[in-house]
Amino acid sequence: MCDIHQGAHSHQTIDPAAAEMIEKANRENIETVWDRYEQQKPQCGFGDLGLCCRNCLQGPCRVNPFGEPKEGICGADADLIVARNLLRTIVGGAASHVDHTFMAVQCLKEASEGKAPYPLKGTAKIKSVAAKLGIPTQGKTDTVIAQEIARAALADFGSSTDDPMNWLKATVSPNLMETWGKLGILPKNPDREIRTAMHQTSMGVDGSPINLLLSSLKMGLVDGYAGLQMGTDVQDIIFGIPEPVKSEANLGVLSHDKVNIVVHGHMPEVSEKIVEWARKLDGEAIKAGAAGINIAGICCSGNEVLMRQGVPLAGNYLSQELAIITGAVELMVVDVQCFMPSITKVAACYHTKVVTTTPIGQLPEAEYIPFTPENADIKAQEAVRMAIAAYAKRDPSRVQIPTQKSEVWGGFSVESIVGALAKVDAANPLKPLVDNIIAGNVLGAVGVVGCNNVKIVQDQQTVEMVKDLLANNVLVVATGCTAHALAKYGFLSPAGAKKYCGEKLLAVLTAVGEAAGLGGPLPGVLHMGSCVDNARIGDLLGALAGYLGVAIKDLPVAASAPELQHEKAVSIGTWAVALGVLTHVGLVPPVLGSPIVTKVLTADVEGLTGGKFLVETDPHLAAEGMLNHIRAKRKALGI
Amino acid sequence: MCDIHQGAHSHQTIDPAAAEMIEKANRENIETVWDRYEQQKPQCGFGDLGLCCRNCLQGPCRVNPFGEPKEGICGADADLIVARNLLRTIVGGAASHVDHTFMAVQCLKEASEGKAPYPLKGTAKIKSVAAKLGIPTQGKTDTVIAQEIARAALADFGSSTDDPMNWLKATVSPNLMETWGKLGILPKNPDREIRTAMHQTSMGVDGSPINLLLSSLKMGLVDGYAGLQMGTDVQDIIFGIPEPVKSEANLGVLSHDKVNIVVHGHMPEVSEKIVEWARKLDGEAIKAGAAGINIAGICCSGNEVLMRQGVPLAGNYLSQELAIITGAVELMVVDVQCFMPSITKVAACYHTKVVTTTPIGQLPEAEYIPFTPENADIKAQEAVRMAIAAYAKRDPSRVQIPTQKSEVWGGFSVESIVGALAKVDAANPLKPLVDNIIAGNVLGAVGVVGCNNVKIVQDQQTVEMVKDLLANNVLVVATGCTAHALAKYGFLSPAGAKKYCGEKLLAVLTAVGEAAGLGGPLPGVLHMGSCVDNARIGDLLGALAGYLGVAIKDLPVAASAPELQHEKAVSIGTWAVALGVLTHVGLVPPVLGSPIVTKVLTADVEGLTGGKFLVETDPHLAAEGMLNHIRAKRKALGI
Repeated sequence: MCDIHQGAHSHQTIDPAAAEMIEKANRENIETVWDRYEQQKPQCGFGDLGLCCRNCLQGPCRVNPFGEPKEGICGADADLIVARNLLRTIVGGAASHVDHTFMAVQCLKEASEGKAPYPLKGTAKIKSVAAKLGIPTQGKTDTVIAQEIARAALADFGSSTDDPMNWLKATVSPNLMETWGKLGILPKNPDREIRTAMHQTSMGVDGSPINLLLSSLKMGLVDGYAGLQMGTDVQDIIFGIPEPVKSEANLGVLSHDKVNIVVHGHMPEVSEKIVEWARKLDGEAIKAGAAGINIAGICCSGNEVLMRQGVPLAGNYLSQELAIITGAVELMVVDVQCFMPSITKVAACYHTKVVTTTPIGQLPEAEYIPFTPENADIKAQEAVRMAIAAYAKRDPSRVQIPTQKSEVWGGFSVESIVGALAKVDAANPLKPLVDNIIAGNVLGAVGVVGCNNVKIVQDQQTVEMVKDLLANNVLVVATGCTAHALAKYGFLSPAGAKKYCGEKLLAVLTAVGEAAGLGGPLPGVLHMGSCVDNARIGDLLGALAGYLGVAIKDLPVAASAPELQHEKAVSIGTWAVALGVLTHVGLVPPVLGSPIVTKVLTADVEGLTGGKFLVETDPHLAAEGMLNHIRAKRKALGI
Repeated sequence: MCDIHQGAHSHQTIDPAAAEMIEKANRENIETVWDRYEQQKPQCGFGDLGLCCRNCLQGPCRVNPFGEPKEGICGADADLIVARNLLRTIVGGAASHVDHTFMAVQCLKEASEGKAPYPLKGTAKIKSVAAKLGIPTQGKTDTVIAQEIARAALADFGSSTDDPMNWLKATVSPNLMETWGKLGILPKNPDREIRTAMHQTSMGVDGSPINLLLSSLKMGLVDGYAGLQMGTDVQDIIFGIPEPVKSEANLGVLSHDKVNIVVHGHMPEVSEKIVEWARKLDGEAIKAGAAGINIAGICCSGNEVLMRQGVPLAGNYLSQELAIITGAVELMVVDVQCFMPSITKVAACYHTKVVTTTPIGQLPEAEYIPFTPENADIKAQEAVRMAIAAYAKRDPSRVQIPTQKSEVWGGFSVESIVGALAKVDAANPLKPLVDNIIAGNVLGAVGVVGCNNVKIVQDQQTVEMVKDLLANNVLVVATGCTAHALAKYGFLSPAGAKKYCGEKLLAVLTAVGEAAGLGGPLPGVLHMGSCVDNARIGDLLGALAGYLGVAIKDLPVAASAPELQHEKAVSIGTWAVALGVLTHVGLVPPVLGSPIVTKVLTADVEGLTGGKFLVETDPHLAAEGMLNHIRAKRKALGI
């Protein structure tokens, strides 16, 4: 596992591999995200506080947090402007996840109808999803059941009634239904909610910050169930339920003598096919003079193919340009979300090809290979062959691949966690975990999720905070770019468990790991997947709460997005708060301009859902805040 | 008709009634929209140029139009930032109209099923809409057909296929289908398009300004057909097809001795019921010491009940606070869109009650009376009785109602225009109009639509521009707050036709008006309704193009939004450009930061659809630009 970088670029990253590539970029005069951040300083204080409104053509308006004007032209004050902006941000996040999920549902539909070359690998998930949706399965083949599941998903998108969406109803406990029902935030058709929220935030509609905040909570549920939950369920059906798998992480996974293909984005429909065809066309790469094809992943595409294929992680969000700057990447394939428009500019400095794959995610200087579920095999071959052809143009004199790479274990779906625990108690798999929580061997659990953000030294908040949590015997689960971050420093490995976990936690991890035949402790941080896979954390919380006969809000758990960046992180966090979870964010979101919004999000909402936001930029204080919360919840449970 | 104000407030409004009320507001120390505008100056130049990005938590970013930085943190340049912001603006507008329309469809569904107290008055529209949708009508009652129409509308919202929305296909000509199909901008399920556009504009998805501009055109069609067209069709079915009706406009319509209720917003489901119950409860008002109940309308609620009920117009967007400042308004009922959050603050200075009626349009200081289609009768009575009760608290010493009011003719649906023309040629009603266009008696036609915007002297651009158009024998049709503006200065009356129209146009209007039994000319400006009613203009253009056997883009017509303010105006304008219409805007939208976006919108798009934007802040030059366009189109047609 790599050590923490403390050299020249320590104000930018703690990752020595990243620091080495920033150095190379500077030497080669290539602009990176950190350079652009410097050029943006100072950033607009109005926008930073959420006090800028551009929702009509009378604006832009700005209200002054220290004096006049206190209102925009229409009369909207700070609270209203901030609340409207926040809801639109959450709509942006929820819409991104819902659209991603809709594409996965389309893929499931076509695959189950035999129209798209995706054999359905998650047969157990077909059964479990059918069961929760109340779809009878007796006497039906898996593909028929899968067709019905796809239709059920589309029915949620097709509903024009005022009933809450079925996928949500099928997933959550009665106490959550009751809480959300009383608040009037149970979402109907998710697309309708998105449309209505955009209407609600347009000029001259909603003037109530509280009403807008309730709609924000509702939009969090839209993300939670029409984005994350449906997405994860459907992707597991198509691509299989992840099982523990060993791999490596950091830029050192790139190969000196193989064709390097980097998958980047979020849709496994694309990245899985690239992996499949890279393996099948390995011989062509060898014929072209390479030692074969090496695939690595960035952002959540990386997580998806790590979880199910053991593909190594090249880096998280802030490392995407740096992967190209190694000079060793033949091809970067992107689909949707989190790829910087800058990557084609960086790629143009090398032989690297950038391929876009979706109609809504284009880059003017990239090659566009339009993937659809039907043509995915053909298009994936096209992309892989483009990489092989590019290999000949690699300039060895410009190649510099950092040596850092760490062992990483991925694949911790709820099913695989329960499977490991079942090796301890087959009849009652959650019992060993819960018993250890009750006994205080596991103090509690925290889901650490989210992004990198250039405003924060890459990975630093995440790593420092997680160290404190593990040392205090808190089990950590991770997803997204945060999982990449923790992977790089060894937290996702048995060795990391030994290095970072408190004694009691380590003993539990060791007992479970050995029972599960891993020959050592489970990692102290369990990699549960991509950002969409945060649904797995929701499922785990629901299972624990159900086992204990309490609500999720009563569990000794918390969530954290220490380095959040994308609108999706805000909508995911809002879902977590709606679930009743204390949710830490390590960066101040643009809400401080409104006393009401700030107070509701960080305090009052707790009275409604049991959850709230904890805003704390210091990682140690953040850990302390969550530890205090966990201890208070333990006390309330009498444990 | 009122004269143009040239006194102390001539930099704010040309309306003497408005000027008088601004004076009263100043005297009584009440803040209005103009005060808040002054306090906002100088407005942010980055926002004004579209160069501010707040789409992720790394921002806010701003790019410098004159130097560095040229890119945001992710690498998005000016073109990308402007294009993303523009698409989100158009989403805001389209979502507003689509949501409005969805509520109307729900009302139609419930009314046609006998669950809501709205007798379906538009029996002819039931037939014509069923015909265009291909719904067989033989042997079916109107209510059964209406149920099927409601189901057809909901089917567009429920579709998960990639087929274009049915309502669009049922409305437009094959040449438009072909043009839009080739561009790939035919919208599917409108809600899905809204969701996808929000995804497309989130961080790290679309990096192509051109792709985003095509999505903007598509979003214009979402508004055009799932907002405007479906909304107008459905509202006509419920509330009746408008017929020419005489009324009055401007603040002088408020009554000194009656209970004054002002309806404000956009949904006729609410305003029609208020009108109905105000009439029914007139006796209660008389018992309470008033001379009865007087209803007046602001913004598009005003237009809706003028068109079908002859209710007078109190004022347009910038006059909404001023109506309250008369001290004579007992109740302002709002639903959705364009009501300033400031109105409750102004109302608190008087005895005026403000009532909100929808769950997404709340104001903390207002009374909330939740209207639904089912309970509309009960809730309308509640609101009207609240007004009657408030009358006792009116302080006569603070009442000052301007005397200005002008005669206005409303109700010019396509059906009623064709009806009037049929009096000239029953067999071929469009022939008299087209013959006069060919003969040059009517040079062409311009749809003048849109809002007020505090950045523009109220009504000035609209009035000055329309004077030039009429003098040059161009027939004008108007909707929205622009129709209010023209109403105030007499343009919507026979006298206005005599005052403003060129000789040839006047002769045509006189011939048609006399044949239709109006005893004088038709107005030179035909009031076609609310902003949603812009669909009527689309229908008229489609009918004219069909009659002539040409495309809409070949007609000698133009559109103009001289004082646009709301996101809806941008989405409507984009629809017009997609239709092939030269579309003038009298205010520079926040796109000038991008050379590419500016060029595409004002030039290149013409090669794609035949339409483009004309940005011109001088009303005389705007008229000249449209006249030149009309003359060029005439020449191309050989007339």
